Amino acid sequence: MTFKNLIILLFSLFNLCSIFGFQNNIKPNYIIIFVDDMGYGDIGVFGNPTISTPNLDKMAYEGQKWTQFYSAASVCTPSRAALLTGRLPVRSGMASSKNPVLFPNSLNGLPQSEFTLAEKLKERDYKTAIVGKWHLGHKKKYLPLNHGFDYYYGIPYSNDMDKINKNNYWSEYERKTLNSNSYNVPLMENYEIIERPVDQTTITSRYVDKTIKLINNYKDDSFFIYLSHNLPHIPLYASKEFSGNSKRGLYGDVIEEIDHGVGLILKELKNLKIDKKTIVVFTSDNGPWLVYKSHSGSAGLLRNGKGTTWEGGVRVPTIFWGSNIKPGVINDIGSTLDIYTTFLSLSNIKLQNDMIIDGLDLSKTLFHKKKSPREQMFFYKGDELFAVRLNNLKLHFRTTDWFKKPVSHNPPLLFDLDKDPSEKYDIYQKNKDKIKEILKLVEKHNKKMIRGENQLINRL
Amino acid sequence: MTFKNLIILLFSLFNLCSIFGFQNNIKPNYIIIFVDDMGYGDIGVFGNPTISTPNLDKMAYEGQKWTQFYSAASVCTPSRAALLTGRLPVRSGMASSKNPVLFPNSLNGLPQSEFTLAEKLKERDYKTAIVGKWHLGHKKKYLPLNHGFDYYYGIPYSNDMDKINKNNYWSEYERKTLNSNSYNVPLMENYEIIERPVDQTTITSRYVDKTIKLINNYKDDSFFIYLSHNLPHIPLYASKEFSGNSKRGLYGDVIEEIDHGVGLILKELKNLKIDKKTIVVFTSDNGPWLVYKSHSGSAGLLRNGKGTTWEGGVRVPTIFWGSNIKPGVINDIGSTLDIYTTFLSLSNIKLQNDMIIDGLDLSKTLFHKKKSPREQMFFYKGDELFAVRLNNLKLHFRTTDWFKKPVSHNPPLLFDLDKDPSEKYDIYQKNKDKIKEILKLVEKHNKKMIRGENQLINRL
Repeated sequence: MTFKNLIILLFSLFNLCSIFGFQNNIKPNYIIIFVDDMGYGDIGVFGNPTISTPNLDKMAYEGQKWTQFYSAASVCTPSRAALLTGRLPVRSGMASSKNPVLFPNSLNGLPQSEFTLAEKLKERDYKTAIVGKWHLGHKKKYLPLNHGFDYYYGIPYSNDMDKINKNNYWSEYERKTLNSNSYNVPLMENYEIIERPVDQTTITSRYVDKTIKLINNYKDDSFFIYLSHNLPHIPLYASKEFSGNSKRGLYGDVIEEIDHGVGLILKELKNLKIDKKTIVVFTSDNGPWLVYKSHSGSAGLLRNGKGTTWEGGVRVPTIFWGSNIKPGVINDIGSTLDIYTTFLSLSNIKLQNDMIIDGLDLSKTLFHKKKSPREQMFFYKGDELFAVRLNNLKLHFRTTDWFKKPVSHNPPLLFDLDKDPSEKYDIYQKNKDKIKEILKLVEKHNKKMIRGENQLINRL
Repeated sequence: MTFKNLIILLFSLFNLCSIFGFQNNIKPNYIIIFVDDMGYGDIGVFGNPTISTPNLDKMAYEGQKWTQFYSAASVCTPSRAALLTGRLPVRSGMASSKNPVLFPNSLNGLPQSEFTLAEKLKERDYKTAIVGKWHLGHKKKYLPLNHGFDYYYGIPYSNDMDKINKNNYWSEYERKTLNSNSYNVPLMENYEIIERPVDQTTITSRYVDKTIKLINNYKDDSFFIYLSHNLPHIPLYASKEFSGNSKRGLYGDVIEEIDHGVGLILKELKNLKIDKKTIVVFTSDNGPWLVYKSHSGSAGLLRNGKGTTWEGGVRVPTIFWGSNIKPGVINDIGSTLDIYTTFLSLSNIKLQNDMIIDGLDLSKTLFHKKKSPREQMFFYKGDELFAVRLNNLKLHFRTTDWFKKPVSHNPPLLFDLDKDPSEKYDIYQKNKDKIKEILKLVEKHNKKMIRGENQLINRL
């Protein structure tokens, strides 16, 4: 064996260890960049023609672009609960068909019985911070510092809540200079409100600055930073530097400012020479809020958007970058649920034995481009199971449009998502035999389902 | 001035000269890879989730991805006439509302009065070849060798013509082993038929092999090779090596085989060290033929497909690569019409004085990322003007679905394509004032329009 081969062998063993967590002292850093209501088709490399996203395009080229990656819900609160717990939000009581999300008059939040990713990473002394939107309970006991985070800087719920003027949405945009004073949303640091209403025109760049500062503060430790942008959830705001830049209008300005921030963060990781021990994932909480027309994003070739279990509502543009992730396009199935399990696996932290975790470990796909272990996905609207995917087939029992009444389908609708990602051609009649397996899966899922007590309750 | 700076200055001057054609001896090579009926959303980097196109993705990353690039027609024959002449096909008589394309019983073809790109490049002694589908007249006088090409290897019209069995389209695909014997399409070399029916299952790879041979034959000269794939026009065929590979099914297999060929061609140019003096452009003749469902492509986020003047019919996924093209995404307007003018400009060949040429010179965009000179685009269905784009605005006078009767719009429909690429939100009522300029443009266009005598006539 030559010296060179020996080095290669040692290096491979080192990699293998880190992936299977054999070596206790390996603790990669994690950054989740989570955007709000960005559609599948809003990034250049996911097909947008007029939103310019050179940083995300480059991130996708250097990293892994996942083309069949799912959020676990089609609206904010349940989607975020799932991301941080690796569990379907019906299990934690963070999904309800009556109240889709938490509001300023909501009584509760993410129960203490849940273990967030931050909380689990604390078992191995990670520094943990969230910068941005929380939306898992704004009362003190539900805030990030009571869920495993060392530091919190951001807004507690959506940027369109606490509306002061009951104006028509669009009238705000007729002003010469935009401001966000109509929305009395607070900016918080840890437990304190430090700005109210938060100036939303500068919030994207302030979040990025804060993230970069935290990276520098934490760089000699292992860290997890959850950058959870308020935008492009309506109302839309961009800073002066970005306003009017994009051909796509204000929505494009917002995305281009987010893209710029992604570039700054990745550059900082490279400058600090920690890009090889940091994993960054960029994804969205759900699809575009189509009722806001030009102020909503695009689901690209996917059907419908936010608030639905059509692909446009739940499939999100996702990129993994950094560490030794093998560059390429992954068209296997993945989910935001899996981020939890994957990161804990990489950090050699055991999952709780006594809880059902829905997340799967994607690390062999990330580092070796092996087939993703995810073959199924359950799609809930609120707390009702609307659809299920098994491999290439998706069966819809019920469907809905954002604001319309759900429709039940008997027989259900069946689509081949690999061949027909736009869910155009119902193939139920010719594939009745293939449905049995899916129905069995649903039966098994329902039998094992223990629903958490509903937490999405408002003060009357 | 340091020696290094001197070198940089000299190099810049050299580039400047080549772009403005001051230096007579600069003759870049050109390769046009033209695919048939591929949709805007059928390439990974244009947003497709399950068609794997690593070579096109890389080509786009190394080169320029154009996101608002138009074919000059939404069906084969007129689109190809426009590509090779730089002129709207109504000018050459190659567009008709009665017969959309040439058929095996058509009487005529591209008139001798037109000057093809090949013919013009001959003025500076280029070697010229077409490999693939011609579709500009199958009678001897209209064949490629009578239109400036030194060599022809391909089929004279579409791969679904000369049908022997009048079977249902889909029944062919129920066979265990696919063959293309139901379509009596000839394969020609120069003026001779060398195979009939052509074996379509191997045609994509044979075209690529032939192209690579020609590159090697011509490598010490300047050359223009027009690789005009038959596919993914229906009927679909992939070679054994690619059949069953793609998650997207047979349509995906076809695209992945084409993608593989693109990779082989670019690799050969690099191996021969002529990539820096060769420009390769990849584009499609029109949008996806949606009536063929899973056998058609996807227009991505664009509306409708082939045979229509909606964006899905005319906007095509386009990549420029090679030479000193500045990498990036270009979201300005461009057209297949411009390939003619740009290549002739780069080769310092004057356009004909006595003909209206619709193409514009994109070289400053390609080499310096300057704004594209194209601000307008006229969209014809057959020989009728259906729509016009001026900057971000597109005005539809008439619209159609592939097989349905056209609908006239009075008032016309108006869309902002930069903000609303999916043509969802008609903004006519709020923008009546902006229409005057567009109507003036149309008036001017119509006044100067000299229509060629219709060539798309069939034998009775």
